[in-house]
Amino acid sequence: MNDIIIPDEAPSGRRRGGRDRKRSAGGAVQKAFQQPVRAFAPIDLASEEEVEKIHKASLRLLSETGIRVLHDGAREIMKKAGAEVVPGRMRVRMDPDLVMESLQTIPSQFTLHARNPEHNLQVGGDKLIFAMMASAPNCSDLDHGRRSGNQDDFRNFLRLAQMHSILHTVGGYPVEPIDIHASVRHLECLSDMITLSDKTFCIYSLGHERVADAIEMTRIARGVSADTLRREPSVYTIINTNSPLQLDIPMMQGIIDMSGMGQPVVITPFTLSGAMAPVTIPGALVLQNAEALAALAFSQMVNPGAPAMYGGFTSNVDMKSGSPAFGTPEYMKAQHLGGQLARRYGIPYRTSNVCAANTVDAQAAYESVFSLWGAINGGGNFIKHAAGWLEGGLCCSFEKTILDIDLLQMVAEFLKPMDFSEDELGLEAIAEVGPGGHFFGSPHTQSRYQDAFYSPILSDWRNYETWFQAGEPTAMQKANRIWKERLAEYQQPDIDPAVAAELRDFVERRKAEGGVPTDF
Amino acid sequence: MNDIIIPDEAPSGRRRGGRDRKRSAGGAVQKAFQQPVRAFAPIDLASEEEVEKIHKASLRLLSETGIRVLHDGAREIMKKAGAEVVPGRMRVRMDPDLVMESLQTIPSQFTLHARNPEHNLQVGGDKLIFAMMASAPNCSDLDHGRRSGNQDDFRNFLRLAQMHSILHTVGGYPVEPIDIHASVRHLECLSDMITLSDKTFCIYSLGHERVADAIEMTRIARGVSADTLRREPSVYTIINTNSPLQLDIPMMQGIIDMSGMGQPVVITPFTLSGAMAPVTIPGALVLQNAEALAALAFSQMVNPGAPAMYGGFTSNVDMKSGSPAFGTPEYMKAQHLGGQLARRYGIPYRTSNVCAANTVDAQAAYESVFSLWGAINGGGNFIKHAAGWLEGGLCCSFEKTILDIDLLQMVAEFLKPMDFSEDELGLEAIAEVGPGGHFFGSPHTQSRYQDAFYSPILSDWRNYETWFQAGEPTAMQKANRIWKERLAEYQQPDIDPAVAAELRDFVERRKAEGGVPTDF
Repeated sequence: MNDIIIPDEAPSGRRRGGRDRKRSAGGAVQKAFQQPVRAFAPIDLASEEEVEKIHKASLRLLSETGIRVLHDGAREIMKKAGAEVVPGRMRVRMDPDLVMESLQTIPSQFTLHARNPEHNLQVGGDKLIFAMMASAPNCSDLDHGRRSGNQDDFRNFLRLAQMHSILHTVGGYPVEPIDIHASVRHLECLSDMITLSDKTFCIYSLGHERVADAIEMTRIARGVSADTLRREPSVYTIINTNSPLQLDIPMMQGIIDMSGMGQPVVITPFTLSGAMAPVTIPGALVLQNAEALAALAFSQMVNPGAPAMYGGFTSNVDMKSGSPAFGTPEYMKAQHLGGQLARRYGIPYRTSNVCAANTVDAQAAYESVFSLWGAINGGGNFIKHAAGWLEGGLCCSFEKTILDIDLLQMVAEFLKPMDFSEDELGLEAIAEVGPGGHFFGSPHTQSRYQDAFYSPILSDWRNYETWFQAGEPTAMQKANRIWKERLAEYQQPDIDPAVAAELRDFVERRKAEGGVPTDF
Repeated sequence: MNDIIIPDEAPSGRRRGGRDRKRSAGGAVQKAFQQPVRAFAPIDLASEEEVEKIHKASLRLLSETGIRVLHDGAREIMKKAGAEVVPGRMRVRMDPDLVMESLQTIPSQFTLHARNPEHNLQVGGDKLIFAMMASAPNCSDLDHGRRSGNQDDFRNFLRLAQMHSILHTVGGYPVEPIDIHASVRHLECLSDMITLSDKTFCIYSLGHERVADAIEMTRIARGVSADTLRREPSVYTIINTNSPLQLDIPMMQGIIDMSGMGQPVVITPFTLSGAMAPVTIPGALVLQNAEALAALAFSQMVNPGAPAMYGGFTSNVDMKSGSPAFGTPEYMKAQHLGGQLARRYGIPYRTSNVCAANTVDAQAAYESVFSLWGAINGGGNFIKHAAGWLEGGLCCSFEKTILDIDLLQMVAEFLKPMDFSEDELGLEAIAEVGPGGHFFGSPHTQSRYQDAFYSPILSDWRNYETWFQAGEPTAMQKANRIWKERLAEYQQPDIDPAVAAELRDFVERRKAEGGVPTDF
């Protein structure tokens, strides 16, 4: 049980996330909800010719070796679309033309609709989306250490995601609340995601019933008809391939259900170089690309024009232990190559902010900033696990969440365009101050200093002596104080009482029905 | 006194830095000495038009407001070259044509010669140089805390710089050894830099005599004539402007002495936005650029064709306390803009790897990686303070040195070109492994796994349980172990006995003469 905060008692009458800025107890200023824009072209780490080599090798793989599809109905759909499917065999082969023609209908950009339209998102182009971490089995904080996921922590992470404008979407369950029975967990979690936040969110493709419940609850939350929902993407899911070269039943069912309803699927092969993928990064990308293309093509066979994202998750493993590594040079290379491939196909690109560190030390920071470097310059549109990720995804940390929020805000500030107007160039101010003077007191400074620079949450800029006398605090210790201060300020977003009631009714009815069977 | 290591007793017969790789006790593999290459174009954060605005504003500043030059002889040289100098006044004005014509003779690339030719460096183009930190008044390690600079620590940092191939040059005194009298300090330090390392190094422009001693010792170390030295840049100096708009006597004397001898000057305005420069980043860049252009032009008035670098050091200050901040979003912006300006003039670009953290925590890591991000994508050629920098430059840390070496090696690994040959793409291996298999045991993996991925020095990739049982070590604690292990392995590089004797004689003679007056 979480004994620190009392956010459920907070008044829900006032809405956060408006255009005005709010200063928190932690000194963090919440800017207006806004997607950062990358104003420069992403970096091409490989030549066009080299990208074509990966592309062609992937297509050859799909046509010659093929991919194993465990879902009978999916194979039927693929067969109808022209894939080579042998009765009684799971291996599906697709020729290059079939793949490439299928991809044509994937939109290069689309709008993802939130129940609060201020939190709608543009997916694709030069716009960025940062998503709260998802799917950790454990969570941790400096006060109570590491523990299994539970509903209290789950809710607190949702609150942090809601109240920080730099987190644009809830990327799934920040931590898996295993204290809720699996048969009804999705109902409880969806209910929390919809009521504790008014941002978009990600659902899990764990069988038809759960996905159907999620889509219906999303429809209710948005207060729209099924037809409108079909035209307005409002909820998304991650489709992980079962690398190498395998698409399993829940994932294919997820594409059938989500793409069928016009909701975005984020196709993300889990191709760890050296383990489930070749030990070379170009080789791992061949596999990543083949798997991504197969599932992306399938989404269009289900419903041409359904939105989708090209996901890259390729990293390397520690060849001594087999454990996955993140935020490595190889990870950055894979991020850049993945971006080049996604741009080649004109599909929005998903990547991540990940690390393998066990605590919020220098390692956590450098692996995360390297990941962000790869994500931004590699052309990422949708940055999953952007805040909270620790231990290669096995833990969502409250302190890491604050660190990442700070990092993301710094990245957004870096991307903010500069003003090169005469007044900003300050020629007059420089002439006035003159040689050997200083700018502290100049009117040019005075009129701007309050908003001139990003004010970091964690950076301790005191001089050594003052910092030493304060007990030599580390960034992690400061983060520990901040997340508690932030949570204490949480205010639940408004929700139409009729919508809230409809949601409650739906959840109660489905719970009374027993939820979903858990022996799938 | 440093009681940890005994490197002076290490045999000096074997040379480090050859083409073979050496595995250290710390698990760090020393690759062959090699400059990383940026194979992609740097990022243009501003449009060409916006860069022109900064350029033109800077030129206007130099022609209308002018710059204060404290050195009488320097003003004479500028006057002769065509600058507007009023007798008895220190203000010098230069018209745009004079500035731009002067810059024409600066080489866009040159070779910096080390006494060991294997450590020669290409300056400019797409090649990178990482320099050991310089000029800290203090140093620290986890065992003995923070202390004033001294010769033992100074020497140990030099040893670390020498033995890590990713550090391409000694950027100056890593820490100021204040236990050596100022009159002879430069002689002792130069002697150490030349004998404990065989890489290039940076000297301080602290008056004519010191610079003359340094140039002569460099000549002796290289075993060449003064004429050869004049043609072969072998030692460099940092020229900091006294911002705003001021060039002081030792700095201008440094340009006269160094450029006069064909040795590179790294012109680096110290333009902290909000303090010595306008509070806007474009405004601070106008000032940086004006000061840099003035000093760069002056170097060519002294000796047309003398090598020089365009240095950028613009960052912001904490507007609450006035203390400088580093590795911030504003710093990254300034790094990118500085690179665009340097490229506009075709001059090699110097930037830095800096932070404001007081300890080697998450803050130190994120500020440093942001600095490296800005340096690499901003088009830096020469990255000063690349390893060791802490506390905004007030401290050189042994643990930070190891962290930075790891970061630099990761950056170099990221920049290493990938091989897209058929065999590396691994199509055959993927087909062999097939759906649902794994690549651990495949011949494609077996033949490559040992060198496939960068093996980090500090990253702890053990799972949480193992790491927890090991006492929850942070990256800083691991770094503490590593630097001691590394130093214990240090071997002094070879030196020609005749050269060593000549150096010793020179130093003894100059010390007998009393060194240099310290009341300048």
